[in-house]
Amino acid sequence: MKIMILSTGDELLKGQICDTNAAWMAAELVQLGQQVSRVVVVGDDLPDLVAGIREGLAHYDFTLVGGGLGPTVDDLTAQAAAEALQVPLVHDAKAEAIVRARFAVSGRPMPEINLKQALLPQGAQAIKNPNGTAPGFWVQRGDHRAVFMPGVPRELKSMFGRVVPGWLPQPAAPHQAVFQFLGIGESVAQEQLAALLPPGAPIRVSFRASSPELTLTLSSPDAVALAALEPQVAEMLRTGLFARSRVGLPAVVVALLREKGLRLAVAESCSGGLLGSVLTDIPGASEVFTGGIIAYDNEVKMRLLGVPASDLERFGAVSETVARTMAQGVRQRLDSDLGVGITGIAGPDGGTPEKPVGTVHIALATKDHIIHRQCAFRGYNRTAVKRVAAWTALKMIYDAIGSHMP
Amino acid sequence: MKIMILSTGDELLKGQICDTNAAWMAAELVQLGQQVSRVVVVGDDLPDLVAGIREGLAHYDFTLVGGGLGPTVDDLTAQAAAEALQVPLVHDAKAEAIVRARFAVSGRPMPEINLKQALLPQGAQAIKNPNGTAPGFWVQRGDHRAVFMPGVPRELKSMFGRVVPGWLPQPAAPHQAVFQFLGIGESVAQEQLAALLPPGAPIRVSFRASSPELTLTLSSPDAVALAALEPQVAEMLRTGLFARSRVGLPAVVVALLREKGLRLAVAESCSGGLLGSVLTDIPGASEVFTGGIIAYDNEVKMRLLGVPASDLERFGAVSETVARTMAQGVRQRLDSDLGVGITGIAGPDGGTPEKPVGTVHIALATKDHIIHRQCAFRGYNRTAVKRVAAWTALKMIYDAIGSHMP
Repeated sequence: MKIMILSTGDELLKGQICDTNAAWMAAELVQLGQQVSRVVVVGDDLPDLVAGIREGLAHYDFTLVGGGLGPTVDDLTAQAAAEALQVPLVHDAKAEAIVRARFAVSGRPMPEINLKQALLPQGAQAIKNPNGTAPGFWVQRGDHRAVFMPGVPRELKSMFGRVVPGWLPQPAAPHQAVFQFLGIGESVAQEQLAALLPPGAPIRVSFRASSPELTLTLSSPDAVALAALEPQVAEMLRTGLFARSRVGLPAVVVALLREKGLRLAVAESCSGGLLGSVLTDIPGASEVFTGGIIAYDNEVKMRLLGVPASDLERFGAVSETVARTMAQGVRQRLDSDLGVGITGIAGPDGGTPEKPVGTVHIALATKDHIIHRQCAFRGYNRTAVKRVAAWTALKMIYDAIGSHMP
Repeated sequence: MKIMILSTGDELLKGQICDTNAAWMAAELVQLGQQVSRVVVVGDDLPDLVAGIREGLAHYDFTLVGGGLGPTVDDLTAQAAAEALQVPLVHDAKAEAIVRARFAVSGRPMPEINLKQALLPQGAQAIKNPNGTAPGFWVQRGDHRAVFMPGVPRELKSMFGRVVPGWLPQPAAPHQAVFQFLGIGESVAQEQLAALLPPGAPIRVSFRASSPELTLTLSSPDAVALAALEPQVAEMLRTGLFARSRVGLPAVVVALLREKGLRLAVAESCSGGLLGSVLTDIPGASEVFTGGIIAYDNEVKMRLLGVPASDLERFGAVSETVARTMAQGVRQRLDSDLGVGITGIAGPDGGTPEKPVGTVHIALATKDHIIHRQCAFRGYNRTAVKRVAAWTALKMIYDAIGSHMP
């Protein structure tokens, strides 16, 4: 099955909105065992619409068109479909009934202008729209089919679900293995992976970065070949691996803390609250996250975390000693099982030859132990240093309390 | 100028991510007086990439390609460009220097695999990438130019800004007026603006949302017409306006605090550290931001902010009384001029009929005064509630200490 998505609307070409309809349909199609070959976006322009529809009908088994079915002058999709098919626009009784039914439900009178929505390309089949006034429709030319749906996401989604899955063959979906990790560069992982892949094996490799997290997906129609490879890849990524599904590290850590019944507090200097914020993005964080102290000013480190002035003088605020005291201080003061301390230089200013921008000390305290890591995040800007510091702290928690996955 | 965007990557065709790069570039081009004619998305598939690049070079003055420049096997864009142009891939000394320079900055050794990024289509010009290892490049065929940029948004944006504006004709350098605001919906603003615009005036209107901030840009070749309109638009947006340039509200607030010599502390419950984090994203925040207390657990509200247990029982943690005590408590304990308190229900759970999800109380304390605002952020998800709460707090600071712009 070769599938094309044609998204229409000036608002897309002006960047006023992102094309979430295309992303949603593409993801649905993956669930249905299909993959879109091409997405095309055009504006509310008749020749561009006609060209897009012709391209779909000529080269793709199935074309999914979103947008341009409303009643106003810039809604040109039905007209463009008629031109692409070289047939007239004709009044469609079923389409009119769909429009009238919707107005009847809402109790509003139907403006004359909406009758335009009952004009379809000759031979088209109307599709009901339970969520709006615009009927959809589909057309067939030889083996090629195109379906036309409204651009309003709610209407498009419900119409897609009603008609598209039933039209697709039910193929053997490829088997997948997913690895989420951090701390290993994409190119290093790629190089090591190349050495593991059996030559000629029908295994498709894809990497996706959501810095500093990386997702590696292996797909294959061959379940046996994939199963043989999985443990080797997991071992190769061992130091960085934190999930075998597409869940982010903050959610993994919150789930792990819940599972272990542990409560966490954070003391943040250079990360400024980011670690607390990403943890509290996860529903249910309140069960495991007590809170934190953003100790940006050294006074706050002393007053609220018990960092001795002498340590700040002797070692500096960005030091192992201070990170350890912050972690233990926040753990105790917030009556938690675990405490994290992060202190570093996020830049762009504040670096020195001994402690350049990107120097970050992270400590993780339990009642009896403190572990510490000194990091040199070079080449990152201010917000990236904050982010990689927060994620490194999360990984330290994960490693300390989690068990590595098989 | 006919412009096409070609976005590449299996993650787009699988719907794993939305094509934000295309939306961003399209909006930038509107600012530059251009409009994209077509967006095409293809996967990491050589024939599809070649066809997409050929289509751009054949029919568009300018093709903007994003993605596929990494070092791994699924990064095929340079090879596809070479095939589309029917030239060989050749080693490019400048490109290699760009890759090596980036690894030198980060202090990591360069894997051999990254040398692939120094292979460009013969005749291509390499473009520096200050934010990553992948050099960009551009090619010319007759009057048609195509520029190839990495898919990582941060890298794409900076590369776009470095090269694209300089290549576009300067369309009678339109005069611009920029308004940054929040708290007024785009459709309401649009409707009110329509009433202000003189009929037939050559004034182009564009809105851009970075929720909850909105940017309104008015562009016109007619400086006089624009100048006449500016004060009316500023007055119309008065309650939400915070900048007359494209700077974000956190940066505006940090600058304002510096100007006034004021120091701020934050007490965050539902926002979980987000307000502290967005403030500390701004270089120089350390001069005005002392820190904060993330009082997620009620124990922390009592112990570290002095919220009486009786208030928590009587009014609940999400209440005006508690927000006020949090604001004043953190101001005093962190020895600051201003204190913010935020407590609310971010959802998805925890709402009640009296206090539904989205209920947020925000207080701002000075030595002598406390102001308070009760908000009902309906229809937002958890992270959006956090964000709009943090921005509302910033706007309260702005209104309290700033002066409205003319």
